[in-house]
Amino acid sequence: MHTALKARRQEQATSESADKLLSRLMERCLKVRQTTEQLAAPLSSEDQLLQSMPDASPTKWHLAHTTWFFETFILTPHLVEYQCFHPDFRQLFNSYYNAVGERPLRSNRGLMSRPPLEQIRDYRRHVDEALLRLLERGGADPVMQLIELGLNHEQQHQELIVTDIKHAFWTQPLKPAYIEDAAPEAIPASPLRWLPFSGGIYPVGHEGKNFAFDNEGPRHEVLLQPFEISSRLVTSREYLAFMEDGGYQRPELWLSDGWETVQTNQWNAPLYWIKEESGDPGWQIFTASGVRPINGDAPVCHLSYYEADTYARWAGAHLPTELQWETACGTEQPADSDSAFLEDRGFHPLPARPGDGLKQMFGDCWEWTASPYVGYPGFRPSAGALGEYNGKFMCNQIVLRGGSCATPRSHIRATYRNFFPPQMRWQFAGIRLAR
Amino acid sequence: MHTALKARRQEQATSESADKLLSRLMERCLKVRQTTEQLAAPLSSEDQLLQSMPDASPTKWHLAHTTWFFETFILTPHLVEYQCFHPDFRQLFNSYYNAVGERPLRSNRGLMSRPPLEQIRDYRRHVDEALLRLLERGGADPVMQLIELGLNHEQQHQELIVTDIKHAFWTQPLKPAYIEDAAPEAIPASPLRWLPFSGGIYPVGHEGKNFAFDNEGPRHEVLLQPFEISSRLVTSREYLAFMEDGGYQRPELWLSDGWETVQTNQWNAPLYWIKEESGDPGWQIFTASGVRPINGDAPVCHLSYYEADTYARWAGAHLPTELQWETACGTEQPADSDSAFLEDRGFHPLPARPGDGLKQMFGDCWEWTASPYVGYPGFRPSAGALGEYNGKFMCNQIVLRGGSCATPRSHIRATYRNFFPPQMRWQFAGIRLAR
Amino acid sequence: MHTALKARRQEQATSESADKLLSRLMERCLKVRQTTEQLAAPLSSEDQLLQSMPDASPTKWHLAHTTWFFETFILTPHLVEYQCFHPDFRQLFNSYYNAVGERPLRSNRGLMSRPPLEQIRDYRRHVDEALLRLLERGGADPVMQLIELGLNHEQQHQELIVTDIKHAFWTQPLKPAYIEDAAPEAIPASPLRWLPFSGGIYPVGHEGKNFAFDNEGPRHEVLLQPFEISSRLVTSREYLAFMEDGGYQRPELWLSDGWETVQTNQWNAPLYWIKEESGDPGWQIFTASGVRPINGDAPVCHLSYYEADTYARWAGAHLPTELQWETACGTEQPADSDSAFLEDRGFHPLPARPGDGLKQMFGDCWEWTASPYVGYPGFRPSAGALGEYNGKFMCNQIVLRGGSCATPRSHIRATYRNFFPPQMRWQFAGIRLAR
Amino acid sequence: MHTALKARRQEQATSESADKLLSRLMERCLKVRQTTEQLAAPLSSEDQLLQSMPDASPTKWHLAHTTWFFETFILTPHLVEYQCFHPDFRQLFNSYYNAVGERPLRSNRGLMSRPPLEQIRDYRRHVDEALLRLLERGGADPVMQLIELGLNHEQQHQELIVTDIKHAFWTQPLKPAYIEDAAPEAIPASPLRWLPFSGGIYPVGHEGKNFAFDNEGPRHEVLLQPFEISSRLVTSREYLAFMEDGGYQRPELWLSDGWETVQTNQWNAPLYWIKEESGDPGWQIFTASGVRPINGDAPVCHLSYYEADTYARWAGAHLPTELQWETACGTEQPADSDSAFLEDRGFHPLPARPGDGLKQMFGDCWEWTASPYVGYPGFRPSAGALGEYNGKFMCNQIVLRGGSCATPRSHIRATYRNFFPPQMRWQFAGIRLAR
Repeated sequence: MHTALKARRQEQATSESADKLLSRLMERCLKVRQTTEQLAAPLSSEDQLLQSMPDASPTKWHLAHTTWFFETFILTPHLVEYQCFHPDFRQLFNSYYNAVGERPLRSNRGLMSRPPLEQIRDYRRHVDEALLRLLERGGADPVMQLIELGLNHEQQHQELIVTDIKHAFWTQPLKPAYIEDAAPEAIPASPLRWLPFSGGIYPVGHEGKNFAFDNEGPRHEVLLQPFEISSRLVTSREYLAFMEDGGYQRPELWLSDGWETVQTNQWNAPLYWIKEESGDPGWQIFTASGVRPINGDAPVCHLSYYEADTYARWAGAHLPTELQWETACGTEQPADSDSAFLEDRGFHPLPARPGDGLKQMFGDCWEWTASPYVGYPGFRPSAGALGEYNGKFMCNQIVLRGGSCATPRSHIRATYRNFFPPQMRWQFAGIRLAR
Repeated sequence: MHTALKARRQEQATSESADKLLSRLMERCLKVRQTTEQLAAPLSSEDQLLQSMPDASPTKWHLAHTTWFFETFILTPHLVEYQCFHPDFRQLFNSYYNAVGERPLRSNRGLMSRPPLEQIRDYRRHVDEALLRLLERGGADPVMQLIELGLNHEQQHQELIVTDIKHAFWTQPLKPAYIEDAAPEAIPASPLRWLPFSGGIYPVGHEGKNFAFDNEGPRHEVLLQPFEISSRLVTSREYLAFMEDGGYQRPELWLSDGWETVQTNQWNAPLYWIKEESGDPGWQIFTASGVRPINGDAPVCHLSYYEADTYARWAGAHLPTELQWETACGTEQPADSDSAFLEDRGFHPLPARPGDGLKQMFGDCWEWTASPYVGYPGFRPSAGALGEYNGKFMCNQIVLRGGSCATPRSHIRATYRNFFPPQMRWQFAGIRLAR
Repeated sequence: MHTALKARRQEQATSESADKLLSRLMERCLKVRQTTEQLAAPLSSEDQLLQSMPDASPTKWHLAHTTWFFETFILTPHLVEYQCFHPDFRQLFNSYYNAVGERPLRSNRGLMSRPPLEQIRDYRRHVDEALLRLLERGGADPVMQLIELGLNHEQQHQELIVTDIKHAFWTQPLKPAYIEDAAPEAIPASPLRWLPFSGGIYPVGHEGKNFAFDNEGPRHEVLLQPFEISSRLVTSREYLAFMEDGGYQRPELWLSDGWETVQTNQWNAPLYWIKEESGDPGWQIFTASGVRPINGDAPVCHLSYYEADTYARWAGAHLPTELQWETACGTEQPADSDSAFLEDRGFHPLPARPGDGLKQMFGDCWEWTASPYVGYPGFRPSAGALGEYNGKFMCNQIVLRGGSCATPRSHIRATYRNFFPPQMRWQFAGIRLAR
Repeated sequence: MHTALKARRQEQATSESADKLLSRLMERCLKVRQTTEQLAAPLSSEDQLLQSMPDASPTKWHLAHTTWFFETFILTPHLVEYQCFHPDFRQLFNSYYNAVGERPLRSNRGLMSRPPLEQIRDYRRHVDEALLRLLERGGADPVMQLIELGLNHEQQHQELIVTDIKHAFWTQPLKPAYIEDAAPEAIPASPLRWLPFSGGIYPVGHEGKNFAFDNEGPRHEVLLQPFEISSRLVTSREYLAFMEDGGYQRPELWLSDGWETVQTNQWNAPLYWIKEESGDPGWQIFTASGVRPINGDAPVCHLSYYEADTYARWAGAHLPTELQWETACGTEQPADSDSAFLEDRGFHPLPARPGDGLKQMFGDCWEWTASPYVGYPGFRPSAGALGEYNGKFMCNQIVLRGGSCATPRSHIRATYRNFFPPQMRWQFAGIRLAR
């Protein structure tokens, strides 16, 4: 085949594949946007206004802010004929982008009964239509990458919708359920095994054409010493043994800040655990489907970093660093995981399934690592307002890895770096051990 | 006419008049309950959930709590066959009655999306029906008095619905309007005159068969020295002169606590006043019908006690004591007043109408007095839980008199004692002077 | 005797008596200033720097501020040749006079190691000498009145030295003693009797040439209803009965603010009471001479208004109004009292002595009244900076009457109005009942 | 030489060298203890009681606590006949060792006028004598290592004495000086150069027999990428350029937590900088010898991590990681440094001296690194109470390296890891850049 023909065929192939990519992106776009609305569907307009603490946001706000993200960073600059839905919304639904300007106080999001939920739904439709127009038209790679970013951003907020409404329902006297009980099958947790990794130089961080956040790169090499990692997450039964051994009463097990936090908040169990009042010394747990008995085989979750770190110390181990975690994870894929994800709509972690190798690396519970959240060597935030997405939070936060039962399966990956302040407990965060 | 006949006739007369009283009470009951719902009507279910500060409550909560009051204090003890609407509600909608038991934290009322508004409406219907059944049956005088108390209680919450939603809307970025602008006629304020009262012994406080709260009695005599009282409320124009004279910058004019409050909160104008940003040094004001220019002839309102007291000092006068106010009020009746009341649905004070005598004693604005709120000599709170209604607040509060544009005309009277902590500004509270 | 002679004699007499008055004032001046220093004498320079809460001040500050008062309000304006001791002191030791200018934060008084104590002592000597010079020279009546005010001001701070160092020592792990134990004689408290007063018009408030604070006048008439007042203060034994009856656990006994204060601070006894840890359910008490067992016959003290008011309610009585108290007090004089005063240097209240009539009206413990602190009818604060002395505190405070074991006997009188916020407990404040 | 003789000689040699070591330790012990007292010497007993914020402690407390450390961890367990100076002191001067038991609230250290300073001096003498007795007796190696730890502990508190009294004097209205002005020679800062380091595997952390804290090990290898580091600290002149470029007003330069801290505290300059009030737009600085003009050539210090990080970003660089810093430092020794140390008694950083290579790596200012404070791989805290020394603070703190003008020269070394929360400014902390 002579060269001209070859070049043309290649061109066609590229073009075809570009079309295919575009149609995949469009499909994904529709699906992500619909998923958000499905998450809101069981909630009344009153429910969707709840903000039970400054760190959480109302469902309605999530619906609007994810839409604002597309409007502000994609449609307004890149779709020429785009008409803003409402001039005030640029301020109203800005989360934390100083470069975009003023915004309402974060802690006041629950006070915005106006604009009403119905208008937010119109806002979503308005932006969805414009997005599809932009996608149909195809367009420059950077714009498509921005759309991919917007979808990943929206998936992060899907998880927050779940965790925030769980907290909001928890603060209510009636302890309502978000979904009907899925009655998960009872499986005994597989026994905990230790998987060894030899020391040496390993590559970590993201590279390549697939989407990743700026904080996942640059890919670089690190020198690790030999370590072992546990095959599954710590279970509620194991955590109960720690509690019964006086775990919450022994300062020597705790970081100084952690002990102060325990004392100040009078913690004596994970968040959402309820001591039964009757003679029975049992515990119940508040879940997305209401209050039910603790399942000792399921992973313990809704822990702070302090509790995870202390449990590990008590157990004669420690938390893995994020580099150990990523190295251990290797080429595992969320797609192959048998853990719970957002798509399963149970919103509660499952016991580890039987089987060899590492279980629960993705899904079920975020895993607190021993690593404070800092930039990788050579890290540079994206330019412009979007540079505020990740980089400016690199202080007083701890990295979590692997996603949870509230994370979309298509959102998580081995290099993914989540982060929260060490005292936070309302995320589905649990414990994997290393030593 | 011989005695037996006379007695029977008298019996009939009493009975007739009892019937009449009963039917009047039934009518009033229907009207009061409907008025509350009319006040909620312009608000969405989202609006009705807003709680913008711990001192304010959501509309939905007011709807439920006023109903709870009838259920708890009247239906449950006095209607034999009464079935509670929902067993949890006894705790959920208790405001502050320790004798009734536990209750949700006051500051968390805005977090109760459940029970939903629709259920609260059912609750109201359920209780309304039972109330009518009780009223139809007639019954002992004390029960009828309790119903009268319940209606007065509900009227107090009608005023709070108005003031609380105004505050909630104020904290929103979009500053929505509660009602459409009534476009009140422009009337120049009548000139301020001083009306003299001679010293001597005067009776104050309530007595007789008509309804009054326990804190309005016992009626007793007080010895007053001669005083003068101003014919109308202080206007916005007069208050502006005080502001322009550095009123908010001169510590010598303020009580020590007041000056600290001004500094801490950086007050430089009444609540709801907005400095226009343009070159024009004018002020605007947020009202129930949105933001509009200040009307210099209308009474200044939404002041703290500190501001009222300081203005009076600046003006070379002082606030009247509640005893002076009541003495000056004499036998005036709200029914004869040409001021604004709740029923007028403007929710904003009007300029004083021309005419002799004291104007605006009822309606328009509550009037801060110089009197801390204490019990009258011989005061005893009612027995039981209802004793918590008024008596336990007799500390660190100041008496206000006369009602406002958000007070039902049928609710206020000369002996009525309202009370708020001195720093509070979200009520329609203004200034009358004495000297 | 013809008129000219008569006039001259009268002149001489006046002059002699003026001399006598002057020499009495000079003597009193020396004595008051020395007493302050005697109160500081048992304290090290470290002790004298302690400020254990914002409401209390270091002894050193009291030494300086009382001196500053003479310098600022008397010497600087009225002694022509007076040289300020140090130019910075005008700001450094201003307490709350806005008219005098800026001043250090009240809560930072304990951080002023400089100027050192030795320099404050020099400051006192410097001002004492100038004061004597001014007094020797005689002078206008208003200046002599200002000196009298300065001496009364200093006496108020003598009491604060005692109460503030008691609190500072209390917050120390070693619980040191301020004075050696005086081992007061054990006297059984006299039985509590009720003394009746008939209703009618009574004069209250100060008038005449003797010194009084501006807030004690104008003298005026009030109309009182009949009342009874208890013959002595409530004892510790009686208060213990209230505690054992669940007084601190029963919300129905408390004002709403009081109950919140009890809950927030977890009060379950008066300030300075210590539960013995051993099996014995007894209480000890921290006094100026260290920790010792409770004396059941001595008056209970270091109570808040809330506790005093609640005890009275529990006992089926109430607190007297300040007008009832003053009327009951009549013409009694502190000079005739057998109670403890500052001069006795025991700094602890004594059991009521046997005898008829009202006991303990002066000394032993301040008595919380039922009266919020407001100006009497026609009250006008003094002109200028000294107008800030009393008037600006007329809000959220309660009147106390009669003085305590830390009040100088020569300082108190029947019309004297002390005032503190209702939650304060570090003054020697106890309970007298009325009904 | 036959073996027995050889062995004996070796024994003698060891013994001699042991004697020598012992006498060096004794000499060092005397010197360290004396230095602490010399630092307290310019301060009155009042000064020594000051605690201007919870993070700082009174000089008197430092004097006592360092002594307590020897008594608690060395004398009581290791000197058989040792008599405790005072039984209460074990609790009174415990800083944060939960394993030792209860202790006074940290924020109340400034309220302990008792025990008096004189008694603390006796306490020091008592413990010094016992320490010398223990040293004279020689003894097991572990005990000698504990004494070395105690001396290093005391040296850390020497630095705190300097920084804490500086802060305490700063909060005083009179801004007193701690020492007389040393009038440092004026030297122009040497120009800033960049020194390159190639990537590769480097060893970091402490090993060997010399003293080091547990957190400096284990020694381990790390893989670094190539980097450059600046030859000296950032000067006040350079920092002023950042300020004049709006550094404190531009959120895009700041970490999110940093920007919030700047807003909350209204920071617009380093701690201890004073804006001259006159027309001159100059700045002054409060130092150990009082207020004086800024020296533009001297290093900027008293910065938070947030300010250091932001300055680096503004300058197009970043802060070095602690591993980069230690690698760059290489085998440099504090003994060879021409920077200011505690021993120089100037307590203020000096301009960088001329010369090649890295300047100011030791002394002058602590250098904020980019590294959150975590344990090195394989880190295990010491056993028992002393395990609380360092390990439990490994959260929400940032590593600083190199010591300051308040650090004893004999105390610092290349592997030394200091740590403070990112918002802290009262230490002498400045900026070195990397890129």
